Amino acid sequence: MIKVGILGAAGYTGGELIRLLLCHPEVEITFANSESNAGNKVYEVHEGLLGDTELVFTNEMPFTDVDVVFFCFGHGKSEAFLQEHTIPPHVKIIDLAQDFRIAAPTHDYIYGLPEIHREQIVGCRHLANPGCFATCIQLGLLPLAKAGLLTHDVAVNAVTGSTGAGQKPGATTHFSWRSDNFSVYKLFTHQHLHEICQSLNELKPAQAPHVVDTLDEGFDQATGISIDFIPYRGDFARGIFCTEVITLEEAMPTEAVAQLYRDFYREAAFTHYSDKAIDLKQVVNTNKALIHAETFGRKVVIISIIDNLLKGAVGQAVQNMNLMFGIDEKAGLRLKASAF
Amino acid sequence: MIKVGILGAAGYTGGELIRLLLCHPEVEITFANSESNAGNKVYEVHEGLLGDTELVFTNEMPFTDVDVVFFCFGHGKSEAFLQEHTIPPHVKIIDLAQDFRIAAPTHDYIYGLPEIHREQIVGCRHLANPGCFATCIQLGLLPLAKAGLLTHDVAVNAVTGSTGAGQKPGATTHFSWRSDNFSVYKLFTHQHLHEICQSLNELKPAQAPHVVDTLDEGFDQATGISIDFIPYRGDFARGIFCTEVITLEEAMPTEAVAQLYRDFYREAAFTHYSDKAIDLKQVVNTNKALIHAETFGRKVVIISIIDNLLKGAVGQAVQNMNLMFGIDEKAGLRLKASAF
Amino acid sequence: MIKVGILGAAGYTGGELIRLLLCHPEVEITFANSESNAGNKVYEVHEGLLGDTELVFTNEMPFTDVDVVFFCFGHGKSEAFLQEHTIPPHVKIIDLAQDFRIAAPTHDYIYGLPEIHREQIVGCRHLANPGCFATCIQLGLLPLAKAGLLTHDVAVNAVTGSTGAGQKPGATTHFSWRSDNFSVYKLFTHQHLHEICQSLNELKPAQAPHVVDTLDEGFDQATGISIDFIPYRGDFARGIFCTEVITLEEAMPTEAVAQLYRDFYREAAFTHYSDKAIDLKQVVNTNKALIHAETFGRKVVIISIIDNLLKGAVGQAVQNMNLMFGIDEKAGLRLKASAF
Amino acid sequence: MIKVGILGAAGYTGGELIRLLLCHPEVEITFANSESNAGNKVYEVHEGLLGDTELVFTNEMPFTDVDVVFFCFGHGKSEAFLQEHTIPPHVKIIDLAQDFRIAAPTHDYIYGLPEIHREQIVGCRHLANPGCFATCIQLGLLPLAKAGLLTHDVAVNAVTGSTGAGQKPGATTHFSWRSDNFSVYKLFTHQHLHEICQSLNELKPAQAPHVVDTLDEGFDQATGISIDFIPYRGDFARGIFCTEVITLEEAMPTEAVAQLYRDFYREAAFTHYSDKAIDLKQVVNTNKALIHAETFGRKVVIISIIDNLLKGAVGQAVQNMNLMFGIDEKAGLRLKASAF
Repeated sequence: MIKVGILGAAGYTGGELIRLLLCHPEVEITFANSESNAGNKVYEVHEGLLGDTELVFTNEMPFTDVDVVFFCFGHGKSEAFLQEHTIPPHVKIIDLAQDFRIAAPTHDYIYGLPEIHREQIVGCRHLANPGCFATCIQLGLLPLAKAGLLTHDVAVNAVTGSTGAGQKPGATTHFSWRSDNFSVYKLFTHQHLHEICQSLNELKPAQAPHVVDTLDEGFDQATGISIDFIPYRGDFARGIFCTEVITLEEAMPTEAVAQLYRDFYREAAFTHYSDKAIDLKQVVNTNKALIHAETFGRKVVIISIIDNLLKGAVGQAVQNMNLMFGIDEKAGLRLKASAF
Repeated sequence: MIKVGILGAAGYTGGELIRLLLCHPEVEITFANSESNAGNKVYEVHEGLLGDTELVFTNEMPFTDVDVVFFCFGHGKSEAFLQEHTIPPHVKIIDLAQDFRIAAPTHDYIYGLPEIHREQIVGCRHLANPGCFATCIQLGLLPLAKAGLLTHDVAVNAVTGSTGAGQKPGATTHFSWRSDNFSVYKLFTHQHLHEICQSLNELKPAQAPHVVDTLDEGFDQATGISIDFIPYRGDFARGIFCTEVITLEEAMPTEAVAQLYRDFYREAAFTHYSDKAIDLKQVVNTNKALIHAETFGRKVVIISIIDNLLKGAVGQAVQNMNLMFGIDEKAGLRLKASAF
Repeated sequence: MIKVGILGAAGYTGGELIRLLLCHPEVEITFANSESNAGNKVYEVHEGLLGDTELVFTNEMPFTDVDVVFFCFGHGKSEAFLQEHTIPPHVKIIDLAQDFRIAAPTHDYIYGLPEIHREQIVGCRHLANPGCFATCIQLGLLPLAKAGLLTHDVAVNAVTGSTGAGQKPGATTHFSWRSDNFSVYKLFTHQHLHEICQSLNELKPAQAPHVVDTLDEGFDQATGISIDFIPYRGDFARGIFCTEVITLEEAMPTEAVAQLYRDFYREAAFTHYSDKAIDLKQVVNTNKALIHAETFGRKVVIISIIDNLLKGAVGQAVQNMNLMFGIDEKAGLRLKASAF
Repeated sequence: MIKVGILGAAGYTGGELIRLLLCHPEVEITFANSESNAGNKVYEVHEGLLGDTELVFTNEMPFTDVDVVFFCFGHGKSEAFLQEHTIPPHVKIIDLAQDFRIAAPTHDYIYGLPEIHREQIVGCRHLANPGCFATCIQLGLLPLAKAGLLTHDVAVNAVTGSTGAGQKPGATTHFSWRSDNFSVYKLFTHQHLHEICQSLNELKPAQAPHVVDTLDEGFDQATGISIDFIPYRGDFARGIFCTEVITLEEAMPTEAVAQLYRDFYREAAFTHYSDKAIDLKQVVNTNKALIHAETFGRKVVIISIIDNLLKGAVGQAVQNMNLMFGIDEKAGLRLKASAF
């Protein structure tokens, strides 16, 4: 059994992780840390766990008792935490925040997108789990990047559920405001662009244009192509629905594009290409990503969908854990879709 | 033109009142007071008023310039406000809070349910506007109370939209929690029971049992019948859907019950009896109340529905204002239902 | 491995059953029958199964190859089907329709509510799976019935999700009508009252009043107490939220009522009593039932909640199958709640 | 009083038109025609009109008694109807279908977008009312077209509410499917592209590239720029939220773009530019269109929003009627936003 510690266990991702791990056949939760809820039963905070576990939140962090620890902090806190605490070298770390997603000489975290980094993830010690939008958009674009087909700016439109905004109530997650509503935010400036650009540039052939990170100071549009990303707030709790539109140098039939995706994801455990159009609820409450594409002359429309809390967060984190410990990649992730 | 001042104009009821009054043919808004938003344009706070008004929130309260002032404070603040401020005697007051809904020798506020107090409202100076649940439940029960048919405890189940909980975000108005959810609160102890009991006892024949207010300290169930009220939080923003079940001494045909309602509401401007079953969206975004009843042996099921922000709050307040100033009762209240 | 055949596999319950069984560790689906979809892949009809199964709908019914067959027909078709087809005696039948829920000398179907019929279910050959409302309401009332506390009419209010209405589109499942709406149907006359009365009368002490089935022709209210059931259509897809209000002969503390529930459900695999108020999403996408009660003088309010497609239909059917085949009652039913 | 006849009065647009006209101060409804509902009261079909009107659907069409007739048929039926019926020359026609939206020598219908055709509409006899998506997208792009700024392909993403799909229930309007879901349809091939291209080409300077209609047979992308339109099905009943992304020849500050919109819509009765980001509910249940723009280097993101049944259908039709009869353009259209 893999012994797991969870930090930040009382938030949305912490709760979803506990819900997943309680059903995982090869895991036991050693501790679930939450300062604000220490002493409370987990089922008092996370809905629906009544009857499933008597686990209690702790304010202790017995790292020596665990094999792996998940960081479910808000962004920016992981790095600060590590400066103040020492985690034994044999304990693996899976960080769900964005602190270590960009490769740097100062850290050894592997960017945990199994569809491209499977080999590095197996056996790695420190893993940075990708962002939700970042996962969905990359899965839609990576096969095209690798094929050298990203030669013009890419139009990306992606709508997310309210759980992406976390547990803290606010104006844009107020039910009275959000129900039946639709809106945009962080137009062209969403922070996930960093990791998206990193992966696209990693896979692209040398001769293909550089994907410029428009968030970088002093970037120069003239030096490459951009990802023009509009994030939307949707009127639902779970899921990300994304369209990516690219312009080809010359027209390709839909089937040729489809074959690129089928080939690229042939070994993927949870990512599949659909010949038919797809809708969001096909992936809600699962760890799957589904992708569909259609061409119109030189334009290609790609649709990619995931559950933001699962493939977009803790589902992928558990998938990565499975790979890191050499067990069945799907263990604990054969989830019944909610479907409705 | 009736000159109107609004206190607490930046909240949900304040906003709905402004939306109503901007379309009211015989009203001009003299001031909209909000300390926290003083200096901001009204359309910066209240959605959808862009293009309709350049009105600015003020922190002043020029009572001498108005004919009537609406109190859109939270409950309990109206009384406190009046102790600290003097409003000229010629200025009428319409209080949307619950501070003066219960008749008392210490105040002269009329309980503003036009279906039973039309004559007192016309020409009154101080008016306490009924609560949302209270309006819906009373409209369902008053004709039966008057007919002396309330002789056993009444089962009341009523579900409300999220706007009933106000503008401040919280756990039970968080979209991620409330969407697709259903829950109860204040079981048998909702504060609107006070005003409901007051009206039922006011209308009932002398020989009919007293309706006991189970919230009163030292109440004795043995002395009368009770209103067993379960309030629910619904998965929608607007509206109250209520069922009331009563037990008759002896069976009555549905048609006889229906006739009681038709007779009682014959002169009502906005309250109608429906021969067919009704659904919530028939009244959403209108000032109407609809009622339907069916009998089963000695049991009668009554359904009553309103929009909580309109007939349940500011719509009824404007209806009362119209009566108080002797103008068309429906002025400014001929609203296109949203329907969808 | 238990070999399973499914009839009516293209409907809502058929789909949910397939989603469950694909994750069940001791089951293999031998055939999924659907005349209208014969030849189509299952994932073309049931959302989200793309990538999970290549199963194809068949119009054959190889009963000799299976250990158990599930009837996912509409109501009334099971009996007709059995008159036209012969199922080998060794093949167990689990019928999700209402055809055999009422005990009769003409059939040997066990009413499959494990909380009261666990022993009969283990090893039985033919099982009638309870209705969704019926499950939720019975779980709320049975401990009180057994304790002889049902001595007055019971007020039952229960709201269901749209999946309860099945796959065929219609006026009351049209999104434009149902979203943000609320309505009642089959007031006091829902067909599930039959099975509810049957169970309550089965458990009640001899001296307690008979529960009369108000749907029976020629019933006489004077001979017992009634279940006054108002079903509501809710603005969500999954789940049933039910309140039951009973009147005691004399007041009991909440804790004493709570203890009745804890004792009654001590051995139940999926039914739990909650000391805190409960909300619908605590059970959505799980096979659990949760119950909470509060007393007010002589009145008791009980809340009971389930997922209508799981504990209210195929989840309970699989639970019954597990019992019938003597395997772990929870096999295939340790589901991650969707929670949001 | 303008005397109005309505054909197709039992559908969604027919109902919304009746709801509007009942509150219109200068209109009386002479007849509301519906073959399938002839003899039924209007409030039996259209929710919420109980208490507002005793109007009865008729199967007669007394054209000589009216000043104007609205065609609320499905697409393609208007032209067929006119071949079989004669409408007196003095009776104005407002057609809500798409039959006459494209100018042709065979008809004299004016394309009724008041923001560009106000003068032709005033006094015209036959009017083709624009489509819902078409209105929203045009209002977002027309000022840029006129300024000659549309020089590259335009990325358009627009999500619509379920009422856009009409009253007939179907798979994609089934509540169980659509709630919490998101999907695309008619990728790059929506029929409204015809009228959008027509208007953009009408306004553009001669030297600006032609906007090619990708739906036309034999179109050649090389001859101009295209509108790359992805329509989405949203999880709400009313409204269209649209983003348009254009690429400029050289960067412009946001304020310069904003000024283009302010100037273009200075005289518009219902279309306004917002300096702040906008969200869908700002326009729901109103006849308004709101627009907001932001620039990022050479890219401009425009957001445009309307209520699909009002500014996108019958609201605009009534606005056109007002112009055609020379009365206040806003008569009957000062609607209280639902806001929630």
